[in-house]
Parts: sequence; C-alpha cells; structure tokens
Amino acid sequence: MRNVWQEPQPFGWEDHVRAALSEDVYSGDITSSAIPPGRLVNWYIEAQATGIVCGVGIVAYLFGQETECLVSDGAQVTPGTVVAKGSLEGNHALQVERTALNYLMMLSGVSTLTNSFVKTVEATGAKIVDTRKTVPLMRHLQKYAVRCGGGHNHRMGLYDAVMIKDNHIRAHGSITAAVEATRHKISHLYKIEIECDHPEQVAEAVNAGADVILLDNMLPAVMAEVIQEFHGKAVFEASGGVALSTVRAIAESGVNVISVGALTHSAPSLAFHLELNQG
Amino acid sequence: MRNVWQEPQPFGWEDHVRAALSEDVYSGDITSSAIPPGRLVNWYIEAQATGIVCGVGIVAYLFGQETECLVSDGAQVTPGTVVAKGSLEGNHALQVERTALNYLMMLSGVSTLTNSFVKTVEATGAKIVDTRKTVPLMRHLQKYAVRCGGGHNHRMGLYDAVMIKDNHIRAHGSITAAVEATRHKISHLYKIEIECDHPEQVAEAVNAGADVILLDNMLPAVMAEVIQEFHGKAVFEASGGVALSTVRAIAESGVNVISVGALTHSAPSLAFHLELNQG
Amino acid sequence: MRNVWQEPQPFGWEDHVRAALSEDVYSGDITSSAIPPGRLVNWYIEAQATGIVCGVGIVAYLFGQETECLVSDGAQVTPGTVVAKGSLEGNHALQVERTALNYLMMLSGVSTLTNSFVKTVEATGAKIVDTRKTVPLMRHLQKYAVRCGGGHNHRMGLYDAVMIKDNHIRAHGSITAAVEATRHKISHLYKIEIECDHPEQVAEAVNAGADVILLDNMLPAVMAEVIQEFHGKAVFEASGGVALSTVRAIAESGVNVISVGALTHSAPSLAFHLELNQG
Amino acid sequence: MRNVWQEPQPFGWEDHVRAALSEDVYSGDITSSAIPPGRLVNWYIEAQATGIVCGVGIVAYLFGQETECLVSDGAQVTPGTVVAKGSLEGNHALQVERTALNYLMMLSGVSTLTNSFVKTVEATGAKIVDTRKTVPLMRHLQKYAVRCGGGHNHRMGLYDAVMIKDNHIRAHGSITAAVEATRHKISHLYKIEIECDHPEQVAEAVNAGADVILLDNMLPAVMAEVIQEFHGKAVFEASGGVALSTVRAIAESGVNVISVGALTHSAPSLAFHLELNQG
Amino acid sequence: MRNVWQEPQPFGWEDHVRAALSEDVYSGDITSSAIPPGRLVNWYIEAQATGIVCGVGIVAYLFGQETECLVSDGAQVTPGTVVAKGSLEGNHALQVERTALNYLMMLSGVSTLTNSFVKTVEATGAKIVDTRKTVPLMRHLQKYAVRCGGGHNHRMGLYDAVMIKDNHIRAHGSITAAVEATRHKISHLYKIEIECDHPEQVAEAVNAGADVILLDNMLPAVMAEVIQEFHGKAVFEASGGVALSTVRAIAESGVNVISVGALTHSAPSLAFHLELNQG
Amino acid sequence: MRNVWQEPQPFGWEDHVRAALSEDVYSGDITSSAIPPGRLVNWYIEAQATGIVCGVGIVAYLFGQETECLVSDGAQVTPGTVVAKGSLEGNHALQVERTALNYLMMLSGVSTLTNSFVKTVEATGAKIVDTRKTVPLMRHLQKYAVRCGGGHNHRMGLYDAVMIKDNHIRAHGSITAAVEATRHKISHLYKIEIECDHPEQVAEAVNAGADVILLDNMLPAVMAEVIQEFHGKAVFEASGGVALSTVRAIAESGVNVISVGALTHSAPSLAFHLELNQG
Repeated sequence: MRNVWQEPQPFGWEDHVRAALSEDVYSGDITSSAIPPGRLVNWYIEAQATGIVCGVGIVAYLFGQETECLVSDGAQVTPGTVVAKGSLEGNHALQVERTALNYLMMLSGVSTLTNSFVKTVEATGAKIVDTRKTVPLMRHLQKYAVRCGGGHNHRMGLYDAVMIKDNHIRAHGSITAAVEATRHKISHLYKIEIECDHPEQVAEAVNAGADVILLDNMLPAVMAEVIQEFHGKAVFEASGGVALSTVRAIAESGVNVISVGALTHSAPSLAFHLELNQG
Repeated sequence: MRNVWQEPQPFGWEDHVRAALSEDVYSGDITSSAIPPGRLVNWYIEAQATGIVCGVGIVAYLFGQETECLVSDGAQVTPGTVVAKGSLEGNHALQVERTALNYLMMLSGVSTLTNSFVKTVEATGAKIVDTRKTVPLMRHLQKYAVRCGGGHNHRMGLYDAVMIKDNHIRAHGSITAAVEATRHKISHLYKIEIECDHPEQVAEAVNAGADVILLDNMLPAVMAEVIQEFHGKAVFEASGGVALSTVRAIAESGVNVISVGALTHSAPSLAFHLELNQG
Repeated sequence: MRNVWQEPQPFGWEDHVRAALSEDVYSGDITSSAIPPGRLVNWYIEAQATGIVCGVGIVAYLFGQETECLVSDGAQVTPGTVVAKGSLEGNHALQVERTALNYLMMLSGVSTLTNSFVKTVEATGAKIVDTRKTVPLMRHLQKYAVRCGGGHNHRMGLYDAVMIKDNHIRAHGSITAAVEATRHKISHLYKIEIECDHPEQVAEAVNAGADVILLDNMLPAVMAEVIQEFHGKAVFEASGGVALSTVRAIAESGVNVISVGALTHSAPSLAFHLELNQG
Repeated sequence: MRNVWQEPQPFGWEDHVRAALSEDVYSGDITSSAIPPGRLVNWYIEAQATGIVCGVGIVAYLFGQETECLVSDGAQVTPGTVVAKGSLEGNHALQVERTALNYLMMLSGVSTLTNSFVKTVEATGAKIVDTRKTVPLMRHLQKYAVRCGGGHNHRMGLYDAVMIKDNHIRAHGSITAAVEATRHKISHLYKIEIECDHPEQVAEAVNAGADVILLDNMLPAVMAEVIQEFHGKAVFEASGGVALSTVRAIAESGVNVISVGALTHSAPSLAFHLELNQG
Repeated sequence: MRNVWQEPQPFGWEDHVRAALSEDVYSGDITSSAIPPGRLVNWYIEAQATGIVCGVGIVAYLFGQETECLVSDGAQVTPGTVVAKGSLEGNHALQVERTALNYLMMLSGVSTLTNSFVKTVEATGAKIVDTRKTVPLMRHLQKYAVRCGGGHNHRMGLYDAVMIKDNHIRAHGSITAAVEATRHKISHLYKIEIECDHPEQVAEAVNAGADVILLDNMLPAVMAEVIQEFHGKAVFEASGGVALSTVRAIAESGVNVISVGALTHSAPSLAFHLELNQG
Repeated sequence: MRNVWQEPQPFGWEDHVRAALSEDVYSGDITSSAIPPGRLVNWYIEAQATGIVCGVGIVAYLFGQETECLVSDGAQVTPGTVVAKGSLEGNHALQVERTALNYLMMLSGVSTLTNSFVKTVEATGAKIVDTRKTVPLMRHLQKYAVRCGGGHNHRMGLYDAVMIKDNHIRAHGSITAAVEATRHKISHLYKIEIECDHPEQVAEAVNAGADVILLDNMLPAVMAEVIQEFHGKAVFEASGGVALSTVRAIAESGVNVISVGALTHSAPSLAFHLELNQG
C-alpha cells in the first residue's frame, strides 16, 4: 500500500485510533444488529471543501486492506476530491465511518489553517510554528497535522526544550542567573528559550546565551528594532494572539519564527463525507 | 470542596486528565530542573473572553487540594472572571498549568458555542443537540460540555440508539422492513431514528413506528409542512450544516430537536490564562 | 474463515481474551518446558451436554488460523457435537485449551439457560431479557450470549436507558415530577422505565409518559389486570425472582418483557472438552 | 477501618473493581441526571439467603470511607444479616450499588458452594480444592472466594505447578521419562502432578517421584485400593465430575484432595440486596 | 520463521517490547524527518564479545518479517558471530536498532554470566538458580535469560512458592509451627522452603517437613556437614553473596542448588552492534 | 514528608513501581497466608557498600506514610548508613521489601558508577553523560539516577534531539546536505549532533552548523587536535567504549562531554538490605 504519511509519524497512533473506535462503537453497533454480515459495499471519501488533507493513513487503517489512497497527507483537496476508496463488508464500513471522518476532519482542519498562515507569510523567511495549546491527547497528531500544513513544531512538551518565563526568572533572581543555572543542569542537547515581555529584557537574554528569544505580545515595529539590534545572536520568535490578519506584519518585522496557538486550539474542521454503494 | 461538576460526570475523566498531563510532561519538566522545589506560589485562572465555563473540576483536580473554585461548570464568565485560585508548590503549578488550560479552553469553547445556539432558538421549543462528530477520545467530555452550555446530547455512540440510514434501508428492502427487523432484534429500551432525505419518506417512517425522524438537509418550509402533517406521531430532528445564521428559521419550522455538528468539531476555544504570584 | 459470530459482536473482545489467556499462562506453561516445540497435533472440541453453543469465535481466535468451525454461535449442540477442530503446535494447543473452554462453557451456559426460558414462554409474545446482574467484566460477552440463546438485552448499563426507582421518585417528589425532570434533561433518544412496586403506581407512570413500566414482584393475576387496563400505553416488563417454574404463568399475564437475573448470575456452565491426537 | 479480607488478597483487585464499575456506568448514570448531587442517604446491604459471605472489602471500597463492615469475608450469613452499612451521597450510592452487589453475589456464591463441599467431607481428612475452570478474568477473586469458603487452591495457572497429562506422556514416551525430563528443567520449588486415568499408571507415577497423583474419574473403591497400596508415597487427588451427592464417598476412599470444577464454573450466586433511606 | 526461543517463553513479551520501543521513539524519530521513506537497507547484528546469546526472537520481532536468525537463544557467540540479518526500510531499521540491541545486550549479559557460574560448578551436581533480585519489570525476561544460560529458576515471585524466613518464624513461634500452619493453608502444589541462618535450625526444619532448606551465608565446610547429616531428607540450597570465585567450593559441599543474585542484578551487558548497508 | 527526589522526577514513576510490585506479588504472597494481619513491625534499610544512593522516594512510596527518610537521592552512603526507616504491618512490609530493594540497588548502582566517572574527570571541565543504551522500560529512572550521580543526560530518545550518523549522511549525500535538510524540517528548538568517525569530517560538520560533534572512538591526541582547531564552534562529545581507566585522558583532550554507555547497561547494583524488628 502506498505510503501516505509524512515522516516522522506520531508513534503509537494505531492505539489512539483503536481507542477512538471503541469510544464510538463500545458495546456494539445496534443499528446493524438485524443486517446479516457478509455483503460488500464500495465506498469512497471525498472532500467537501478546499484545504490541506491530513489523516489519510488513519482512514486506510480503519477501512482495511482493500483501501486505495488517492492522495497523501499534505496534499491540497477541493470539493469533490476523492481521498480514498475501497470495498468492505457493509456493517464494518458503517462501524468505522464516523471515527475515520472525525480524525480526517479534525486533522485536515489543523493542516488547512496552518497552511493559510504559512502562505500569508510566504517569502518573509518566517516559520509558522505551533504551541502546547493542543487538544488533550491529540498533541502528537495535531503537531503532525501542523507539519503536513507546511508549519513547524515548537517544543512537543515540557520535556524537550527549556522555556524560561517570568516566574522562573524571579525564582533564579535574574535572566542571567536563570540561564546559567539551567544550562548547567540540562543536557547539552537542549536549547533554552527566554520569554521577554519587554524589549529591555532582550539584551540580557542574548548575552546570557539564550538560543531563542520569545518576543511576547510586542508590536511589529518594536520587534523589528529588537531584531535589528541583535541580528544573528539568537533565533527570534513572535508570540501572542497572532491572527491571519496580523501575521504578515509580524513576519515582516524580521522574526524567524511565529507561534500560533489557534492552529491547534481553534481550527475549524475541514468537511469530508463518505459515500457507499452496494457492491 | 464545592461540587463544580454537573451530573452525570463523564466517568473515568481522571484517567483522561492524567494521560493528558503525561502527554505534556512526559520525561520531566526540564525548565524547572534548576529550581529547588518547595516554594509556594499563589495562582488564579481568569477568563479573557465572554462565554460559558466548563472544566472547572479538572482545574481543581490538577491544581490539588488547596484549590478554591469560584464558579461552577455552566456559569457565564466575562473577561476578568476568576474561575479558580489557590496556592501550590511553584514547579508543580507550572507543570499542570498548560494541561489545565487546554481542557478549560477547549470545553468552555464547546459550552459557549452551544449556548449561542441555545439562546438563538430560545422560546421556539427546539432543543439543540450534539452529534457523533467529536474530537477523537474527547467525546464524553465534549458531550458534557454541550450539556453545560444548555444543549442536550444526541446518542453517545453506535451503541445506545438506532439510526437507520439510506444504506440500512437498502439492505433491508424498505423503511418498514428495516424498522420491523431492527425493533425485533434490539432491546425494548432503545429508540429508533430514521434519516429521511426526502419528505416522501416520512409517512412510511412514521407508520413503521419510528421514534425519531431525522429531516436531513431540508428547507424550513418543507420541514414545517412535514411536521404539521405528522404532528405528535414522532420526534422530529433537523440536521445538516446548521449554522448560527440559519438555526432560528429551522427552529421556527416546529422541529423538536436540531443537531449541530459544529458544536464539537469546530468550536473555537475560549481564552483563559493563569497568573502566578510569589507566595 | 466462516463467520460464527452473531452481530453485533461485543467490541474489543480480543483484548478480553488475551487478558484471560495471560491470567492462565502468566510467566509461562512450565509443564511443557521439557517438550521441544514444533510437533503438530490435531484437536477437536466436542459438547458433553445438550444446549446452545456460544463462544465459537473465541475458540477460533485462540486456536489460530488452522481452525475449522463446524457450528455458529446460537446453534444447538448435543453430547458429541464437534464445534471446532484443527491442527496446532502441541504446546500451543495445551496453552490455550483451558482459556478457550472457560469462555465456551461459561457463555454456552448463559445461552442455554436463556434458551430454556425462551422456549418456556413460546407463543406468549413475551420476550426474555437479561439484567445488569452480570459477572464483573463479563457483561458484554454475557449479554451477547443471551442474544445467542434467543433472549434480548435490557439496558447495557447505567448509561443507555433511564430506570426510575423508588429512591429517584422520592428525590423528585412524585413519579410525574421524576419523569418530567428526567425527560427534560436526557437525550431524546433515551427511553424511560419506571419501577412500580404497587399496581396503584402504574396509572401515574403511564400518564407521565413512561416508555416502559417495570412490574416488580407482582403476581401474574395482578399484572394481567394492570396490563389490560393500560394496554398499548407502555411496554410492560415483569421482574423479580423469575424462575423456569414460574415464567410461563408470568408470560401469560400479557407482559411484553420478562427480565431474569439468573440468566447471567446463576447459569451453570455447559460442558465441553478438548481431544488431542498426535498429528 | 476493620480488615475484612483474608490474606493473601488477590493483588490489584482495586483495578478490577474500577474496570467493572466503568463497565456499568461508562458515559454516566443518566437516571440521576436530573437529581442535584449533595443529598446523603443511609444504606445497608443485607443477605437474602444463607451462605458464606465473600467480597465485603469490595463493598467497602465502592461505598467509600463512611462504610462500616459488620462481618468479614468467610463469615456465615442468613437472611437479614447486614454485612455493611454507611452513608453516602445519593447519586453516588446508586452508581456503585449494582457493581458492589455483582461482586458480592458472585463471590459469596463461590464461597457458599465451596463450604457445602467442605462440610460434606468433614472429618474425612480430604481437602476440597478448586480448578482452573474459572470465569475469565475472575480467577484470582474466585480462588480467593474458595479459600473464604474453607476450600483450598489447586494451582493458580499454567505457571506455578506441573500437571502431566496424557498428551505430555505421549510426547515424552513414558511417565518416567516425562517426570525426569520435566524435573530436570523446572525450578526445584515446583511440584509435579501426574494425571492417571487408569490404576495401572499409578505405580509408575509414584516410582518416578511424582509429588501428587491425580486419580481421574475413578470409582471410590478403586481409589481406595490404590491409596492403600501407595500410602504416604504421594498426595492423592480425586477429580472428575465431583458432585455434592458423590463427594463424601470419594473422600472416604482416603484421597487427600478432591478438586471440584463446579466451585468456580457453576456456583449459583448468593442473594443480597441494598436498602436506601433518606439521610 | 525458525523458532529461536526456548520454551516456556515469557508470556506477553511482545507488549513489553512495544512499550520499550515507545520509550525510545515516543513522538517520533526526528533525525529521519528529512529522509523520504522507502529505501531498503541490508542489516546484520554481530556479537562483539564471547558469551551466550539471548533475545534473538525480540530482534526478529522488531526488525520484521524479512529477518533471518542465524542462531537461537542459548547458543554461544564469539566476536564476529552474526546473530540475525535481513533487509528493512532504512528509517524503520534505525528506529528499532537501539531497542533491539538494548534487549539483546542485557539478556545476553544475564545468560553469559549465568553460564559462567554453570560451567564453574560442572560435574558437582549443583544447579545454579536465580533470585527475586531482578531489574523491575524485567523479571520474566531475565529469568528466561537465566534458563538460556543453563541456569534454573528459583521461585518467580511471592506467589508460587513459600519461603519462610526469620520474621515468619517469629510470627508463628517456631519453625515447626510455621511449617504446620502454612502447609495447612496453602495449595498442596506449593513447596515450602525454610531459610536457616544457623546449622542448629536445620534439624527442626527437616523434621517439620520443609521441602527445601536454604543455608544462608554458611561456610562450605559447615554446609557439607549439615548435608551429610540430613542427606536425602530435603533439597539443600546455598545462598548469600555467591561469587564466581567461591561458587565451586560451595558446590563441592554437596548442596543441590546455589542461588546467585548477581545473575540478574549485576550482570554486565554483552556487546553487539548493528551494521547497515545500502540495499 | 521530606522531599528526597531531585527535580525533575521521571513523570509517572508511581505506575512503574506499582507494575513492578505486581510482577513480584501477583496473585498473592503465599508465605504470609497463615499469618494474621495487623501486627506492626519496625524496619530500616541500610547500605552495605559505599556509593551514591538513588531511589529513596520509591522506598518511601512502597513502605507508606510511616516512613522516615534519612538521606536524599544523590547522597553518599557507606556500609551501615540507614537510608529510611519506619513501621508497617508485618505482612505488608515483607510484600514490598524486594521490590523496594530492587529499585534502590539498581538505581544506586547507576548513580554510583556515574559518580566514579564524574570524580575521575574532576576539574577537566568535561561533563559525563549517559546514552540510549538503557535497560528496557527503565530509561527515565536510569537517566534520573545518572543525574543523581552528578552526571548529565544525553538525549532521552529519538524524539528530542537529532543525531546524524553515517547512514543518514549517505541518504542525504553529504554532511552539509544532511544538516541543511534536517534543520529545515525540525523545530527551531532542537539541536543537531553529527557523529564523526574521522577527524576529516569535523570541518564540514562545524561549517554546516552542527551544534554538537560526536568524536567516535578517536584517540585523545586526535581529539585534542580537532578541538583546538574548532574551539568554540561546537560542543565536542567523546564516545566509544569509554572506561574508568581511559576517561581521564579523554577528558584532558578538551572535550566538553563524554558519553558512557556502561553507566546504564553495565553498572553493578549497590547492596542494601532490610532489617525488621517486632514492633
């Protein structure tokens, strides 16, 4: 079967999908209880809107081996695009339908919104990245969807990069102390990001050796100034209520990275539906 | 501690929350690795937008016993409303912050959108209900959020009510045959709903003894006619791309129930944030 | 492989079976430790008593792909009926034997007892249904066995139908208030059953719009009177210590449904055994 | 709280109970959805039949800290014996009721049947033991119930003792070869039991050094002869369709141990019920 | 595929391996994120030291169906011995490499150290056995590795044999009382071992009917005397800080069994590495 | 209770410990079956060797609330040092003893070996770090033990840092291409390490912008030259069969980091034992 996933896949996604199927079917699909099994149906899933598809591999997993995928994750779809088709025992097809579509619509929604941001900042050099503002238990799949939409990932969780905020700075006494103490403790393979709420903090953060500077809720003009002053001395990330209407101006300030919480907490789903035909 | 949940709570939500916390923290919060534990902080969570709050009990669970909840699930909040506050060891507070907010923002988003629909159909007698178009593994919590927003639940999954669609009708030969065969098989405690794509199907469905008739993608005027003809002989449910702009007209057609997929697949999150102060 | 299950199968039964196999084998079958693997044996499982078989699909799952099933769930067996046969590596066959038989004997016991009740009420129009008095963690499989024996299911748990008892009535103030308040809250797809301990309660329950009336521990003559009075206005269910010796008289009272706890809490197992022959 | 368990408890029983509760409540108790939480009720559980109680600790676990247990596992109860009582929030009490009773009735049924066998063989010196013919996933709890009823356990599974049967003997060539090869492989802490279908096999089994000899489906007179001949050279166990009506004669043959499959595969449940009173 | 396991395999090892793979890969192998999947590589795993291999079946499981195993568990390897080879998609091979080697190196380390002890006591008649001093969650696999190295298992845990120590003796009052009370309670299929710290305790233990006598931290000469006195009346086990340098003398004392904690708590790993070649 | 853990704790360690306890106790501690519960004992755990303790919090968790910890993780212990003491019901204490000691001995073994390496390189400026060569399912705890011993962590798994090896370079065509393609794909918060087998590769790796250069199996003199040439342009890590006897010379070559597989795959356990006294 054609590989429709982008690497690296979120490990263990099969368990996630089986749990979600169980959430829907639980003690059994009672509507099919009077329909004798055995009859094959032909099915296909088509897009009902324009966007970036994500979750095709999950569809194939749920609909079984007689599935043919016509597009891969990350492809653009328009109304009528068939993403996958196949044949399956009828009761079985109805049993997996909703679960498959729920993943496909949710993840494609994330990829599509991500892609809108990515296109809006095109040619500015700024990367669009996600945040930890994800739907509980969907983080790895949502962050995969962000990648399929052309975005990049911020850290995956509290465990893979350091983000020093206000509160940590207060606990250590100063930005410099915080970076030093943390650098001393952590793996040499982890980066340190510092959240700066005010431009005045940036100099100390850069000098302390921060790898990434988060410019939180600053105006583009302010960011532009900061970045010009410290050009090349750190990666600069803009953050804070970024919207499609404001992201271009932010990108043009020269920031390297723009993190957008809405990608994963407020993306509307992308519509797909299943069609069934007697085999 | 004050009870902030509405009954019935989604059973086993504690396991869900612990799994989500593990998704975020995993091998450990490396940012706090150089901060000695022990220092207490005072914290509070406040709303940054207007809506219906849902998930306060999850916040209390994550922030521990020294949590005071100031509102219950289903309450209205406005920017600045403090939903919960307390004191906690600093590293611990930072460890649970994101997970708590992710639930609170997601579920409150669902409650808020639901409530908008509920208010829009006020005094029409129509109930707003959800669908099975939920985010994978979030169904029980999202359906709880719908209830907190003043909505009602459709079936929870494939297991607790019968929904006879096109394909089932074809397998059985006719609506009448489908209802009869299914009624004969299932528990006397389950209801049967029939999806009608055309008004002509309604008479047969009603006569076959369907408990609920789904009027799929029909114009309000068509639905009004149907409902007048079969008044009291079944519960009538409208469905199909229902939006805030169209729901009032649909409700005024006389339907008893309006199911809205967007409640759970496309609700934008409601913003909350955490404030921390040295204890 | 032939489908030997009845629909709808209890979802996730494979995990149940693997857990039960682990319960038996755990750290390894030490008796076979000195027998080199590789030798095939021919095996068959035959009934040692007369009854209704249930669990053939579980046998096939445990004994692997070289299994031929000779009967399907719900079939009658008599002493000597071979339900399945095949060939398998000898140590493997001995490892799964007990687990397979434990399911087969337990579930066939339930199907058999159910079928005795079903036959006893034949032609009375009464359905035999189970209860929530099931063996912990065996509910879905036992309720499946009830269906295989010709019985029907009552609700699966607390989640899929409303059963208003004494205590709920007291909490609401009256039957009417209880039905009204509950109907207002629950999904339009759930039915309401009311437990009536006294015939006088039935009128109020029917008028309140109960879907099902549970006549608890009433004499057949009393039930007959009640049913005559309210014929067609609700489904009537008899309950309370129903035995094979009393069920016919109860059925002839005109009740629609008779629920029998013994089906799942006190069914003796049906005997089967495994025969092995060198391949 | 008083300890009502016998040692050794089946490890991890709390997880078992939580899973069973989830099986019953799942997405929530909808009957209580319209009853505001908070009202306390007084409850007690009383026996409705005579037997040996088992599962009191599970009741206490489910009904929470305000539970008072009046008897311990293994005690005799008669109709009206109150086994536990307490007070609890009303909706919560109704939520755990069925799960608690299902354990209590099932396990007490096993203890009670076991005790009948134990009493029937009193003063013969024979021990009553269980088998591996247990209900899937209930083995550890059922075997605990056997102990509470005055019985003893046979091996827990395939992992903790060797049982050499026909098929193993054939694989090794002879009883002697089977015992030798197995003894050589296994831990010095495991015993070897040999199933003998014919009296002629016993001499070889004893000489090979078997720790226990299973006399399968032999007449009491035959067993008596065998045991007299090999007295003190092994433990002798009778097995095969043992019933209350035949067990005394078997015991009087002089066997040390009698294994009874019915204890765990066909024990009828012992009746208990819950009473609730407004607090 | 050739069977490379020794019987009995530790049941459920596949779940163990999948959990370990997840521990390593978690949210995805980011190094391969820019390498398009699809390219096959040829791989082989070779030993870098001399010892006894264990874990070949786990390697085959992780590297998939195109794996050829060249040795079985328990075989001797020397530097350069290829234990398995095959071809696999490149990213996939790199993903499973470390997990496969971690098992192979750990388990082969245990087998190798065990084998050194076994060879050291050759021809003395003493068996080398393990203890419960295993690495958490690795017990079943480590005890399997002990068997592959020519050793035997002591009890698997607290559940499958009785070990009466000082503290139990005190609780019962005397060795005789402890054995009697315990024998009366436990299954007739369990053995009783008594830990004796002083030679004077042995007589009472033997007379009480202990199956196994643990001679704890006694000098070989003392053990020799004890064993001579009670020859054939029990199995004698030596224990306590046994090292390669002391084990031969201990074995020559005439003990039947020598238990060595170091086999599972302090075995250095045996080195293996993976080689990859473009396919 | 005093905090004896170092931050950040491996998240979810309680589940790990409960699973390990279940591995040991499983169906119940049969040795205690004849000892009535209730009797308290006083216990303490003392070191029998010199080293760095790790796992005190696990001991406290298993022995319950009446535990007093006398040292914290990372402290030095010598023979006789009491690490924790308390009182507990006797059967309970014997049930948790082995599991507690298995963690304590294993983790303290890792901390102790780590600390030997750390002390050996003292004042050279080189950090000692672990690898992914950990015992399956013990990675997070072992890496925690490395930190307690004064070492640092390398990446936790495949997911939190990039390590480009031979095979990746071949897939991309060159070091430069590999770094560029990977940098383009991954989060801006991840670092890139490149494994160089030959000094000639270092220049390209440094110029490509690698954050860390792994000098694999190079002689100290060669490393010294390389580091001098590229001083400050990357972090330099030495790797490959590092032993206590060679690590000082390696550290003096000027490398920043030395990774040692033996810390987690071949550390002998540190001896502790439990003493019990009647309460």
